[in-house]
Parts: sequence; C-alpha cells; structure tokens
Amino acid sequence: MQTLESFVEGRWQAGTGAQATLVNPTTGEPVARCSTGGVDMRAALAHARDVGGPALRRLTFAQRGALLMAASRALHAQRDALIELAVLNGGNTRKDAKFDIDGATATLAAYAEWGAKLGETQVLLDGEGLQLGRSARLWGQHVWLARHGVAVHINAFNFPAWGLAEKAAVAWLAGMPVLSKPATATALVAERVTRILVDAQVLPAGALSLLCGSVGDLLEHLAGQDVLAFTGSADTGYLLRSKERLLRQSVRVNIEADSLNAAVLAPDVGPGSETWNLFLRDIVTDITQKAGQKCTAIRRILVPHERLADVEGELTARLAATVVGNPADEKVTMGPLATASQLADAKAGVTKLLGECDALLGGLSEPPLTGAAPGKGFFFGPVLLKVRDSARATLVHQHEVFGPVSTLLPYDGTAQAAAALVRKGEGSLVASVFSDERAFVRELVLAIGPWHGRLYLGSEAMAPYSPGPGTALPATLHGGPGRAGGGEELGQLRGLALYQQRVALEGDRAVIDRMFPPTPRAPSA
Amino acid sequence: MQTLESFVEGRWQAGTGAQATLVNPTTGEPVARCSTGGVDMRAALAHARDVGGPALRRLTFAQRGALLMAASRALHAQRDALIELAVLNGGNTRKDAKFDIDGATATLAAYAEWGAKLGETQVLLDGEGLQLGRSARLWGQHVWLARHGVAVHINAFNFPAWGLAEKAAVAWLAGMPVLSKPATATALVAERVTRILVDAQVLPAGALSLLCGSVGDLLEHLAGQDVLAFTGSADTGYLLRSKERLLRQSVRVNIEADSLNAAVLAPDVGPGSETWNLFLRDIVTDITQKAGQKCTAIRRILVPHERLADVEGELTARLAATVVGNPADEKVTMGPLATASQLADAKAGVTKLLGECDALLGGLSEPPLTGAAPGKGFFFGPVLLKVRDSARATLVHQHEVFGPVSTLLPYDGTAQAAAALVRKGEGSLVASVFSDERAFVRELVLAIGPWHGRLYLGSEAMAPYSPGPGTALPATLHGGPGRAGGGEELGQLRGLALYQQRVALEGDRAVIDRMFPPTPRAPSA
Repeated sequence: MQTLESFVEGRWQAGTGAQATLVNPTTGEPVARCSTGGVDMRAALAHARDVGGPALRRLTFAQRGALLMAASRALHAQRDALIELAVLNGGNTRKDAKFDIDGATATLAAYAEWGAKLGETQVLLDGEGLQLGRSARLWGQHVWLARHGVAVHINAFNFPAWGLAEKAAVAWLAGMPVLSKPATATALVAERVTRILVDAQVLPAGALSLLCGSVGDLLEHLAGQDVLAFTGSADTGYLLRSKERLLRQSVRVNIEADSLNAAVLAPDVGPGSETWNLFLRDIVTDITQKAGQKCTAIRRILVPHERLADVEGELTARLAATVVGNPADEKVTMGPLATASQLADAKAGVTKLLGECDALLGGLSEPPLTGAAPGKGFFFGPVLLKVRDSARATLVHQHEVFGPVSTLLPYDGTAQAAAALVRKGEGSLVASVFSDERAFVRELVLAIGPWHGRLYLGSEAMAPYSPGPGTALPATLHGGPGRAGGGEELGQLRGLALYQQRVALEGDRAVIDRMFPPTPRAPSA
Repeated sequence: MQTLESFVEGRWQAGTGAQATLVNPTTGEPVARCSTGGVDMRAALAHARDVGGPALRRLTFAQRGALLMAASRALHAQRDALIELAVLNGGNTRKDAKFDIDGATATLAAYAEWGAKLGETQVLLDGEGLQLGRSARLWGQHVWLARHGVAVHINAFNFPAWGLAEKAAVAWLAGMPVLSKPATATALVAERVTRILVDAQVLPAGALSLLCGSVGDLLEHLAGQDVLAFTGSADTGYLLRSKERLLRQSVRVNIEADSLNAAVLAPDVGPGSETWNLFLRDIVTDITQKAGQKCTAIRRILVPHERLADVEGELTARLAATVVGNPADEKVTMGPLATASQLADAKAGVTKLLGECDALLGGLSEPPLTGAAPGKGFFFGPVLLKVRDSARATLVHQHEVFGPVSTLLPYDGTAQAAAALVRKGEGSLVASVFSDERAFVRELVLAIGPWHGRLYLGSEAMAPYSPGPGTALPATLHGGPGRAGGGEELGQLRGLALYQQRVALEGDRAVIDRMFPPTPRAPSA
C-alpha cells in the first residue's frame, strides 16, 4: 500500500508512528496511508517563512501571475491522472472529479491573469492618497504589503484539488508561502497536486509545503504575521479559532464552515418557464453533484404554497432518475459519500430532520447500486424532505446534512416571509433567488443580503449562462457571516487582503508618491 | 455623590446592587458611582437591533452624515462642560481634555462630510461589476449592506469622548446602532456625551445606548449580525475574543490593544535640523500628553549610536521641564494617571524594565507637585530609560508601561538593524521614521510595514504641518497586527467594513444594474 509523504523543509518526508488509512469509498478498501509523526512543525514553518516568503515577495505581481499560470498548466497536463485518483479516493464520478480539478486550474489561471494585469510592481496601493489637514504637503496613502508569515491552509475533504489551489493561488499572488494540510481521508489528490507542482519546479523553494496527516502541534508555532484559513465543519472551526495561541497572537483566521444555503422560488415563476427549469436544474445539481458534499449546496428550498405540488412532482421525478453506484462506471451519476463517518453523519442528520420533516424521496437504507457491491461502500441515495410546519421547524435551519439531502419549506409567496425563513439559517455562504420580478428580487436581496457572502439571482435572461449557485467563482466572494464562519475568500483581488497588511502612510507627499507611484491600483482589494 | 445611569431601552436607568466608584485622580476623592445591576442586557440589545437598526438603515448616507454633523455640533456646544469633567474624572490638563473632546467632534464632522459626499443612497458598491464567464449577461457586482445587529463598543479609560465618538461615527454612517460601554473609571465624560446627544435629540431612537458599569452578561446575547469593537489591554482583549459565544456565532470582533510603538531616528538627521526638532517634539508630546496614556504613544526610541549623547541630553532637559500636578492649574503640563491601579501598573512596569534598562530621568517615587497635595493623587513623573544592551533586551519589546515612560535603544544606523529591533515589538499601531533620506525611509517602510497599521514619516517638509504620530486621524487607519490586536478602525470609509456585510451578487446584468446603479462608489471601503 502506498505511503503518502509530507513535503516540508523542501523535501518529502514519510511520517513515523501510527498511520492513518485512506480508503476507496466505493469498496471500503484501503488505498494509502500516512502520518505526520516525526515532522518538525516549527522547522516546517520556518522554512516557509524564511525561504519561501522572501522569494515570493521579491517577485512582482506579474511574475507571481506567471508562476500561477505555470502551476495551472502543470496540473492540467496531469488531469487524467488526477481524475483517476479522485474516483479512487474521493468516490467522485469523472464529472465530479473534473469539477474539482478544473476548478483548481481555472482558479489558478484567473489569478494568473489578474497578476499579469497588476504588472511589474510588488506593492498595491489601497485607494487614492489624500491630504491630511490644511497643507497639501501632509499626505496620507494606504498600501498593501505582503505579510511575512506563512499561510496555513486546512482544507476540507470534498475538494482536495480546488481547495488547495484556490487558497494557494490567492496567497501566492499576495506574496505569501503556503503550508497546505488536506483532509487526511482524501489526501491522495492533494498529495499528487503537490508532487506535480514540485516536480515541475514552477514554484520558488519554500512556496508550497504539504502535510499528509495530523497537524500535530503546528498551530502552537503560529505568530502575528501568519494566517490560518480553514474550510470544514463549524465544530472544527471553533476548535481552531479558540486556540489561545492564535487569539493571543492575533493570528488572522479565516473560516468557511457549515452553511444552510437557501433557494427561494418566487411566486412569479410558473411551471415550464426558463426560470422554473433553471430552479429545478440547480437544485438537482446541488443535491447530486459530489453526492451533495458541497459547502455551497442548496439545503433549504423555499416554495410558494401554490407551487408546492408541482415542485414536489418535478424534483422527486428528476432525483429518482439518479443512478447511484461505482463512480468509475459511466452510467453512474452519483458516487458514494467520502467516508464511513460521513455516511454515519448523513444518516444521523436525516434521522434528526425526520423529527420535523416528511421524506418525499429516499431514506436511510442503501440505495440500489450500479457497478458496486452492496454493503461495502458508503452509499447514500438522494433524499428530498419537506417540513411539516414551516412556521415551527427549527432543525432544518440549524443542522446541515452534508450529503445528497435537501428540504422543501412552503411559504406564503411574500418576500418578507421568505426572508424570515432564510434568516433562520443565521448566516450562509450563498442564497439563490429565482424570479423575473425585479421588485421581489430587490426586496429579498435587501432583507437577506447581510446574512450572506453571495446572492445568486436566477432569471430567464441569465439561465443559459448560469454556473449555478453551487459554483464558487474566483471573481466573486466565497464565504459568509455567522454560521458560515465569517470568512471571505476569492472575490478577485479582495481575497488578497487576508494575506497582506494594510498600512497607512503619513508624511510628505513628495516622499510617499516617489516611494509608491500612484499606479497600479487594487480594485477594491 | 452623583450616580451615573445607563441609557438602555430608550431610557435612563440607575443600576441596583454594588456600585463602582469613580474618583478624581488628582485627589483620590470619589466623584460619582455607578452600576449596571438590574439592567436587562438582552432587552438592551433587542431595543438597539429592533428600533435603532431599522431607523438608521432607512436613512441615506447623506442623512446619516447630517445626523453626525448635528451630533458633532451638539457636543462642541458643551465643550467647556466636558473639559471640566475630563479634568475632574480623568486627571486631564485642559489641553489633554481638548485633545479628547475636539478629537470626538472632529471625527464626527469628518465622517459627516464623507456621508454627505456619498449622497442619497443606502447601499455602497464595492468596486466595479464584472462579467462572469463568456456571456455579457452574467454579471457580478459586490455591494456593502449594513449588518442587522448591534455595534457593541467597549472603550478604554484614556479617551472617554473620542473613543465613544470615533467608533460610533463609523458605525452610524455604516447604518448600525451602537451600544457603548466606557471604562467605568472615567465614565463621567462618556455619560455626559451621551446625555448631550440624547437631550439634543439628534439621533434616531435606539441608535445609541450606554452602559455605565460592568457589561454583565451582555456578550452572551451577541449573535452573527453583531459587532464587538474593543480598545484596551491585550489581556482583556483576549478574554473578550476567547468567549465561546462570540467564536461560535462568528461575531465580528475588532481589537486595538497594547502596542510598543517605535520611533526611529535615521543617521542623516543631525542636531538642530527641522527633522531633529520634530523628532524631539513628537517624543516629548507622546511621553507627556495625557501622562503618556495613549495607545499610539512612542514607547521605544531607536537612535544611532553617534546621536545618542545628543538625544539623551535634549530629551532629559525637555522632559525635566515638565510641570506635574493638579491639571486644573494653568502652569501644570502633566496631570496624574487615571487610576490607582494604573499608577501601580506603571510602577511595576518601570521596575520590570529596570532589569534591562538604566533610568536617565525620573523614577518610581512621586514627583514634586504643583497645586496638588502629595500622597493623595495618582502622580507619576516622566521617565526616560535606556537599554543596557540593545541586542539582548527583550522586556522593552514586550511590556508596555501605560504612562509617561519611554526607552532609548541605540542601534548601528542601518535600516535593517532598526527594522530588526522594531519587529521585536511583534506588531504595533504605529511606527515613526524621522529621516530626509528617501532610500533609508523606503527600506525601513518595506521592512517594518507588515508589522504596523500606520507609518508616520517625519521629515523637514512635513514638520510644520505634522500632528505627530500619536494622533489617530479619521482619514488614516487606526489599528495594527499581532500584539496590537489585529484590528482596523477609521481610515475614511475603510472603517465601515466592520459594520457592513460585503455581498457578491451574481445574475443578469440588467437586473443588478437597475437594483444598484453603478454610482456612487466606496473609495476602498
């Protein structure tokens, strides 16, 4: 069996001691093992800080952009190999695997282009300078400077390629070295991504480190110039951000956590319309893509009472056509959950929700499988629930089932009633509104906006071009307040702020303008 | 004796139970008492959220700006009364009191003007919209929406007027109601500020609440739409930000904490030059103004070896001329520390620093007093220390003495050596560089920038107009990484971000442009 190594201090290191086992979720069979036993976390961070940081900061944005483009190309060249690993270790269908891997290369390429546009400079200005007080000599100018620490990235199991690449792309463009820790259960893809980048020699030494296995005492060595970005469960997020060391040192922490993303069907959208079809398509995609294991997936579906019967009929019919089984089989449209514990959690979660919901489709037992042996893998069929009483339901707003599960909530068709339900989620990554009535959309946007990092406005005009609410684009923010963790990632240059320190310069205008000529400028970084 | 009341749920409430006592630090005599016993914190927050929030959000930025201007004027009209209270309860000289009170009105007025410029809109766009993907129909636009919670402000004892007003100005302009909790010891001024604003009826109901006394269980009732901004010690900052409730709910927390701000004299600056005089003036101001009780005060003074004797001579001579005593006496240039515990902390701090420093001026005993009885108040004379070994000293970089105390550190005159010493402070609100040699300034700015929220570049050209590094201007950021707490306040519209949620809108361009016409735009908010 393969042993995954960690890449720290510029070399691959196999961990000692007890090993974690990675399995194939289709069969339950082990595929690799790993450990970070014996890895010197302090030295790993020091190498990134002292070797990778200066090397990246010496580069201009255009040069960092070129490096990102080279990384994107190196990964794309190994796309097929990465897809195989995602099928093997992640239970991804090939389509799911492409979503992850192409997301990685596309995000790297997008930041590469933005780097090229920023050009031959190492410092971004923040807004225009301004006169401080009565004399034109006394000038204020804010600039962004790369932090001198390490960007530690702790990623979720569901996107081992995209998760690593999207966080790294932003940190590298900002000028910070990355130490990435994929979820151990699906680390096979992240390890290969790292190996490809190391072998291709596209990055400066120290710019990328990888931990396969536990973080050990890593966090105890972080300090005020470091950054910790985490994607995963709210409970783990709490454990990380509550560490005294991080709080005492004001280590910047960015968290993307659980989120009960809502979709609202407006009363103006009737069966058969373009917007209606988009609504159904987006929901089915979010339930079945990656077996519903997406932080952006729609978990709550708000439908006007008078549309409920139609929506129930359409969704159950479409979801019932899902072919669950071995993701390597071309006929299969949905693979297993990633791990045994994810399966157990999903079952427990649905059981909990059944306390206030009825099941319209699916249940707790293993679905019929295509190309896979029953009772071996971590399969869970699509589940569509409906709350028995929208006014009283509480669990559906609090408990995310991280699998192919979503719940219908009828409402009275007013934007205010929809908003009240959506807000019970206490903060989400994204909400979607499906409507062609602008007044309804505007009212809902203003009423639920502050609870969200992103709002997806589904309509007839954009339907043909829509990537769906479940796709986090590099150009728009990814993150949300409250339950979603309060973080901000991506969003074009906005994401760079996490990795840079904004500094106000006060002094003689001539000195400041000479030091940082007023171009180029960061667009709302 | 006066009993200070809290202003919550739209009415003044005297607290029950044990009372805290506010004293006159010049005499040690009690001047008022207060308690928040019996105050219903949950109801206080609900009133702000449900009454103040909607009222502020209904206003346009121009209208909020007008409200800020009215608040500024109402306070300015009571300037003399506020100064009297600052002398009585804060031990401020009249000049110190004006610094606090004029800082409050000026910051309100600055944000009033920026509000007027933003005009008749309730929503700020964040950057320009951009095409998402291949079709021009699919559009992304980020907007800022006011959070629907309460801005809880926990302020420091040293600036009861400015601290309340600078935080409130930004929150109100952003559209959030404020619950302000001044440090109990010097709450007399904050209570009067609130009373003036309430009586003048310049704010919508619920826009301002005040707690005089302990926060009780206030923080246990905060949620994901609320904001907590704190200024004070790093230890209290840690206690606040480590609360499970805040971490679990992703309550936004902004902290301004201890900071060992450095001033660097460059080797090009010779005795008698404009820059030399500015350097000395700024240091003497920061040591004596408000008896050194400023979070932005210079605590570490880096001087090239060859300038050390001159700097020692000049600084000790100037500081020795300080007249310590009753701040109501016109001859007095420095009043007492604010409380008995601040005095005890300052003595303990100097004692600690003497482990690695020599005292050039001042000591632990009470200085000669003008117009005040010895042994009654909390007087501490100016203290100038010098480290015995710059290479080995550690305490001077870690322990802030919050009083009229600063320490000289000789260095070799190179920017890199200066940077290495400055960075040992592990993050500060501000550092200042005094130089007319641009290469030195640039090298130092790049080397220490990421450890700071603000860099003050003292030079001959700006000397006549300089407010000094110790003045936090509304136009430039206030806050710093690491030890300084990792926060950001003020900085023109940048400060609004804390109180707003940035939301990415994805949809049909026509829908988005109609909803939020692409003007006006926030400058780097």
